[in-house]
Amino acid sequence: MATTEGMAKYIQIAFDIIQRIRSGELEPGMKVPSENEIIAAYGVSNTTARKALQQVELQGFANRIKGRGTFVRHQSVTRSATKILSFSQNMKQAGLTPSSKVLHAELVKGGYSVTINGRTYRMTEPMYKVHRLRYGDDMPMLLEVRYISAMLCPGITEKDLASSLYRIYEQEYGLQLTEVKQLLTPIILDSATMGFFNLEHETPGMLLEGVTFCGKETILEMERSVYRGDTYQFSVSATT
Amino acid sequence: MATTEGMAKYIQIAFDIIQRIRSGELEPGMKVPSENEIIAAYGVSNTTARKALQQVELQGFANRIKGRGTFVRHQSVTRSATKILSFSQNMKQAGLTPSSKVLHAELVKGGYSVTINGRTYRMTEPMYKVHRLRYGDDMPMLLEVRYISAMLCPGITEKDLASSLYRIYEQEYGLQLTEVKQLLTPIILDSATMGFFNLEHETPGMLLEGVTFCGKETILEMERSVYRGDTYQFSVSATT
Repeated sequence: MATTEGMAKYIQIAFDIIQRIRSGELEPGMKVPSENEIIAAYGVSNTTARKALQQVELQGFANRIKGRGTFVRHQSVTRSATKILSFSQNMKQAGLTPSSKVLHAELVKGGYSVTINGRTYRMTEPMYKVHRLRYGDDMPMLLEVRYISAMLCPGITEKDLASSLYRIYEQEYGLQLTEVKQLLTPIILDSATMGFFNLEHETPGMLLEGVTFCGKETILEMERSVYRGDTYQFSVSATT
Repeated sequence: MATTEGMAKYIQIAFDIIQRIRSGELEPGMKVPSENEIIAAYGVSNTTARKALQQVELQGFANRIKGRGTFVRHQSVTRSATKILSFSQNMKQAGLTPSSKVLHAELVKGGYSVTINGRTYRMTEPMYKVHRLRYGDDMPMLLEVRYISAMLCPGITEKDLASSLYRIYEQEYGLQLTEVKQLLTPIILDSATMGFFNLEHETPGMLLEGVTFCGKETILEMERSVYRGDTYQFSVSATT
């Protein structure tokens, strides 16, 4: 256990705190020791205490929340933004059990549009609107609205909408997804969304607006979803 | 000007407000009329006033800030997350003039590492650390730290670091960028970062951690940057 011997004091303290998080003694959402508690426990300066907390945060084990303290981070899920992947697949990758609660599903009037890189994509009626809250294990992680072409997927609201829609498109309607164009906007969650996620303090989030194509120019669905920023990260690979 | 005639009242009100934004009468950062002001001006219910404001926000012309009101959004810049693009190119695309302020540049001791999709990428000394604040027109938009291999780019701190580093890599060191792996994490800006951006209220942001390769496995640089979420969006295209 003397692996940090000889290292700077703040590294040793950060290591102690990270061990307590990894052992489960400090659970996700719990407060880690404050600067003052670290000063009292280790007899160090406030600079050292602050650097220790920064280190715990930098290593991805905690999030600092302004004016409130530093809290143990929830297990983080990384989502590839460049590979078409269902939420269910993404959860399984992260070792979590996916589930969904359908909040609302109906045939709606009117259209929906999203502008990405200066180009506006439109869906028109008939289309379904499906509103779901999606869980990893028992934690709500994604609040999702999908607009689905009723021409391509007639009667989809009769299917099991708590499962993967991508699977339904492919297996029950024989549609092949070809591309998803997405716009990612960092946001601060509003109070309604925080309610769905059982969050009590200001939390960052990611608004994802997307257009899913099957075939070259055929729009199958559009999406407007909010991901929790305290549990979700997005990985991207860029090339020339 | 009677283009909204016959449409729902809230659409007409939203259209009026959007016209005032587009004409420049309401400038970025200014407050748009509140629910109560809309009720008084148009003689509508609070439901209609709320829907009108939501519509202005949905159309991307304003951001609601909890407990403070709805504010005209700054011109939004979209960044492709899947194409290697310098900040300077991205600004020009958006019709803005890029500039940079070098806050700090030096040869540093120690290493830096970032974990993306479970794989850890490391840079070791000798490396340079370059800290810059980057502007579009006169607005600070990106606070950036780059760790640059001193083996591949010896003496780069003597170059004009206020210009595009990508250009310097390619033109002055003959390096060909091949890939950038990135991790995007939505955050709420901390007070130090808000200071750099001259922001006074809670603002979302995007932490971008990246690894830039030249050649198959050679790490040229790593990045840890914060983008303002109120002016920046990221576009991504996903395929199977």
